[in-house]
Amino acid sequence: MQSNIPKVPQKRIVIIGGGFAGLRLLRKLVKHTFQLVLIDKNNYHQFQPLFYQVATAGLEPSAISFPYRKIFQSRKNVFIRMTEVVKIDPEVRCVYTGIGQINYDILVIASGADTNYFGNQNLRALAYPMKSVSEALGLRNRLLENYENALITTDPEEKQGLLNLVIVGGGPTGVELSGALAEMKRFILPKDYPEIDFGAMHIYLLEASPALLNGMSRKSSEKAYQYLLKLGVKVWLNSMVRDYDGKTVFLANGSVLGTRTFVWAAGITGCAPEGMQAGSFGKGNRLLVDSCNRVSGYENIYAIGDIALMQQDGFPNGHPQVAQVAIQQASNLAENLVRQHEGKPLKDFRYKDLGSMATIGRNLAVVDLPFLHFQGIFAWFVWMFVHLMSIVGVKNRLMIFINWLWNYFTYDQSLRLIIRPKSKGTQIQ
Amino acid sequence: MQSNIPKVPQKRIVIIGGGFAGLRLLRKLVKHTFQLVLIDKNNYHQFQPLFYQVATAGLEPSAISFPYRKIFQSRKNVFIRMTEVVKIDPEVRCVYTGIGQINYDILVIASGADTNYFGNQNLRALAYPMKSVSEALGLRNRLLENYENALITTDPEEKQGLLNLVIVGGGPTGVELSGALAEMKRFILPKDYPEIDFGAMHIYLLEASPALLNGMSRKSSEKAYQYLLKLGVKVWLNSMVRDYDGKTVFLANGSVLGTRTFVWAAGITGCAPEGMQAGSFGKGNRLLVDSCNRVSGYENIYAIGDIALMQQDGFPNGHPQVAQVAIQQASNLAENLVRQHEGKPLKDFRYKDLGSMATIGRNLAVVDLPFLHFQGIFAWFVWMFVHLMSIVGVKNRLMIFINWLWNYFTYDQSLRLIIRPKSKGTQIQ
Repeated sequence: MQSNIPKVPQKRIVIIGGGFAGLRLLRKLVKHTFQLVLIDKNNYHQFQPLFYQVATAGLEPSAISFPYRKIFQSRKNVFIRMTEVVKIDPEVRCVYTGIGQINYDILVIASGADTNYFGNQNLRALAYPMKSVSEALGLRNRLLENYENALITTDPEEKQGLLNLVIVGGGPTGVELSGALAEMKRFILPKDYPEIDFGAMHIYLLEASPALLNGMSRKSSEKAYQYLLKLGVKVWLNSMVRDYDGKTVFLANGSVLGTRTFVWAAGITGCAPEGMQAGSFGKGNRLLVDSCNRVSGYENIYAIGDIALMQQDGFPNGHPQVAQVAIQQASNLAENLVRQHEGKPLKDFRYKDLGSMATIGRNLAVVDLPFLHFQGIFAWFVWMFVHLMSIVGVKNRLMIFINWLWNYFTYDQSLRLIIRPKSKGTQIQ
Repeated sequence: MQSNIPKVPQKRIVIIGGGFAGLRLLRKLVKHTFQLVLIDKNNYHQFQPLFYQVATAGLEPSAISFPYRKIFQSRKNVFIRMTEVVKIDPEVRCVYTGIGQINYDILVIASGADTNYFGNQNLRALAYPMKSVSEALGLRNRLLENYENALITTDPEEKQGLLNLVIVGGGPTGVELSGALAEMKRFILPKDYPEIDFGAMHIYLLEASPALLNGMSRKSSEKAYQYLLKLGVKVWLNSMVRDYDGKTVFLANGSVLGTRTFVWAAGITGCAPEGMQAGSFGKGNRLLVDSCNRVSGYENIYAIGDIALMQQDGFPNGHPQVAQVAIQQASNLAENLVRQHEGKPLKDFRYKDLGSMATIGRNLAVVDLPFLHFQGIFAWFVWMFVHLMSIVGVKNRLMIFINWLWNYFTYDQSLRLIIRPKSKGTQIQ
């Protein structure tokens, strides 16, 4: 097999990864005279901020995923290749992939970040991560299976382990997921499983630092903590996890917690492809870039989004690894690639912090805007509006809106299905 | 592990399978004083008539699946156990399952039918069946992957095999699936894959008998044939398939067809649990039942739906294996179980044929009512209305309605995503 991308006189820009950064870049460049190649292991863009709602049966994966081919339908200068990157060879300007070599004139690495297990192989094998829609769906299936199994076990310790949930990491993912699970425990599970006493179910949120939502204001962090307590989540701050064996979580302070559902949202690490020189890497396995997102040591390789580490005034350790930075870097790079092509000088990237927000439960959210911090029901509506407007595709927006309305008024996420696609036949390698 | 179902003075009715028959029976009996146990390998009811729309990316699996626990929320006399049946021991009135023994006073077998490969192990291993939502989703993923692979292959024979589709079986499933695929080929694929020439893609529908939709009127059968030709499907009647090796379909008449996507919807066989005496079985691995659905040779075992074979006037080979029969048998049995409990005489089952229908494409359907047969756009609206009203759950109905409206006006099924849940951690057996 080959990549089968035609050789044309136009410059070929190869983009690795179609997340917030890669997708924005592609959309900005599509009307210009470049040949554009997107390499991604999935055939769809995923909207990460709502993974936790997939995991808690509130939304379907399809509502927050969007096929690339639909976005770029009938665009003759866009070539989409669903495959894995094996390595890069900057010497010959080539990306080696699962389907053969793809040469580039300009390479943009937008491969993002993946879960960081800090070298612990038990965590890698046994913990549930939350960095893809497939992982969120896997967690949903696991949760539902655990309650089916809790019904029938006669071993009290096993039953307790099946009911308990431990989530590690007090960032937005951990906070939003534990809040949603607490509401599921309160409104849905006792009705679905009248045979189980959910008073015995405990949801733990463990955070190594002294506060939740470290990227946000102190007020929002404290409010989030209070909201979670109100929902019945056991929030343990200053609690470092040492290990997990599939049944028991071992904390650094000697405490143990029994659980069969252990979610790890405690850190990320850059997903850099093989083949880049060691000197190009900074902290967190991120690629060091200049203020135009050019990777240190390379002429025609750029990095944007979570994988990029740009040290600027006010950001000595790089920008926060959030969607806003990814989108803004992609927009700036798109403009620069066009300017470069036209022989104009390049523009430095400047991050404009539009604020951040997190939702904890119904009517409970925290919002930090640059000059205004607020919490509660109004924050919750703002959160919903902003997320709804950020979703790709009118139909997805409509479907999510209806789902949210439905869930709000019925107190019931109805997608409690354990469905796995059944594959058959010969596989093409 | 154990089944953990409490012993109560009320009679325990164990129902195997929650399809159209099992679910109807359960809903009818839930307000009476029985202890009801449902055993199913899934945690949801699936709406089989729309599997083909899941396979062709028109509907999400969740839209046509419904969690049992939601239907029977807060019902203290219903016990749902998600497990496989290993065997039945009628001597001791016990069902052996993956989670231990479940005793019964009355057993109702509603386990339906599964794909019949007629003993061909190649077909079993390599053909795509269409008898569950998981299988339909597996087929969808396969179709989408095939086009991704067709983009990059350099072998013309392999490319042709990746584009071609062969569907075997001219019943409703085969007709509806091939019609939907033909519309996908026409309206969507050329836009999604501008690099591929879909003029080279062929959809074959093979049927061993001389006509499509054998259960329907001659007029409807002929119209369906014409509609499919109009949509560009190559319909081969009197065409018996002998074998498939993963790349090539071998027909009995010596013809061969190259395809990587081979759908087998050419026959079903009863899914009877182990442990029933050989004398209770009739043709098609169905359980012989009397006119009250009692299984031949047993006092307190009943069978309803596709698995039951009731020989009555006008139905010497049993009733058609369709949803209507299953639902009507379940209603009659529910009434009889109550009557029996109250010491009243039982009522014989009488099948009331409400008609049948199939859809071929937009504005194209065929409907046979008892005294009226019609085809075309009005039939298509009737088909949609009847199916929408048959779906369990107001929200599912709403979601399907919006999807259908959307697809109708945009000519675009948008769910072209290859998503597989990622499972991790220790498995509980």
